[in-house]
Amino acid sequence: MNTIFGPARCQRLTNAVNLITFSKEEAEAHSLRLDASDPRYQHIVGVLGSQCGDSLRVGQLNGNMGRAEITTLDSRAINLQLDLNQAPPAKLPLTVLLALPRPKMLRRILRSLSELGVAEIILINSAKVEKSFWSSPVLEAAALEQYLIEGLQQSRDTVIPKISLQRLFKPFVEDQLPSLLSDRQGLVAHPGLGQACSATQQDSILAIGPEGGFTSYEVEKLLATGFTGIHLGERILRVETAVVSLTAQLFPTSA
Amino acid sequence: MNTIFGPARCQRLTNAVNLITFSKEEAEAHSLRLDASDPRYQHIVGVLGSQCGDSLRVGQLNGNMGRAEITTLDSRAINLQLDLNQAPPAKLPLTVLLALPRPKMLRRILRSLSELGVAEIILINSAKVEKSFWSSPVLEAAALEQYLIEGLQQSRDTVIPKISLQRLFKPFVEDQLPSLLSDRQGLVAHPGLGQACSATQQDSILAIGPEGGFTSYEVEKLLATGFTGIHLGERILRVETAVVSLTAQLFPTSA
Repeated sequence: MNTIFGPARCQRLTNAVNLITFSKEEAEAHSLRLDASDPRYQHIVGVLGSQCGDSLRVGQLNGNMGRAEITTLDSRAINLQLDLNQAPPAKLPLTVLLALPRPKMLRRILRSLSELGVAEIILINSAKVEKSFWSSPVLEAAALEQYLIEGLQQSRDTVIPKISLQRLFKPFVEDQLPSLLSDRQGLVAHPGLGQACSATQQDSILAIGPEGGFTSYEVEKLLATGFTGIHLGERILRVETAVVSLTAQLFPTSA
Repeated sequence: MNTIFGPARCQRLTNAVNLITFSKEEAEAHSLRLDASDPRYQHIVGVLGSQCGDSLRVGQLNGNMGRAEITTLDSRAINLQLDLNQAPPAKLPLTVLLALPRPKMLRRILRSLSELGVAEIILINSAKVEKSFWSSPVLEAAALEQYLIEGLQQSRDTVIPKISLQRLFKPFVEDQLPSLLSDRQGLVAHPGLGQACSATQQDSILAIGPEGGFTSYEVEKLLATGFTGIHLGERILRVETAVVSLTAQLFPTSA
């Protein structure tokens, strides 16, 4: 029991990640040094409590996963020997078209979508998205990518979901969405609309409104573009609960 | 479009609730006064931007739902006329046996479980639950109930899920769990264990471990008590994502 209740674990303030990630350049070196100032050094030593000789689960972003052996470890650096021979898990054939959530919810939602294996996320405008959300620093590319990588490190995946921003609803839906939809089914989740959400095998685009929902105009525009309405029953879920529930019901584990 | 972009909505800092809740004593009065100091007054005026004559969705905790008409509204108080004639939505036949999460995650997880309609929650100990979590003020009965009510106000339900705490894993599993399980199926979610999670119609108890998972000993104890292992595939989800995904897959909307 000592390994579970040892000091490193008792004092940890953050959750252990399930996969430590490296860039392509780092992974290609095979043998790699992490200085004590590197957050991964701190995670390996301070959170995981790893020691020389231990083997860690690691992955190359947008590449293979595998193991890294700690060949040396002291107060200045860790040296790792990488062996990346395992393909990452398959993505779900799902693009989520999400009305931009308020900034403090965006991180959690992106992390969850990345964790679940969603292939692509498009953040769109909607009448009920407050304009100020579009000028939030969380929308900078580096911040968005960091949230997505956090999801990968949790779920043991390496492939960063594609992400893009569409600040104008009508031009996007009229001019770009029809070609995105050409060989996929479009689903719009909206309380009381269409049929109950059910499992699918098809490559899908799933539109999810903001807190308060899409407006009738927006729903009509999506239906006119070829989307089908789906709902989650009489309960109105928060967006962050709804995105997980919808993804899980569309692509259940047992399918 | 003015009603959407009006000042009350643009400036709101919190999400609008979908159901305003009253106690049994309040609801029985039919005609009710909310002083300006009442958080519900502030929500109705400041967040919803409601006016005299407006009708609001309301519910009596553990009772019926319906509408309330605002009969008077000024800077000191609101008077409401209640009409509660609608039964709340049915609960899912699901008890979640959850290893106590870290305090900052507990609120979100309880809110989500309540939102989804879970009937009962039992917070249990596990080797990887840090002992300090059990002395957190978030475990006071009033705090737990508040988190559960937040979920109901989101999803439009009135029935507060049952909640209880079990601070000792072994005595609970050996002495109490067998009788709880007598006419229900027990499922333990654990990566790599048993079969892929799939939809069920049965009254179920679902055990979910802490971040880092149940120990082998704990899994064995649950299996020996009659639980069956289920998993969510090769991705390792955070507890807060896993509870929603499991509930959605066990009880999909279309079932």
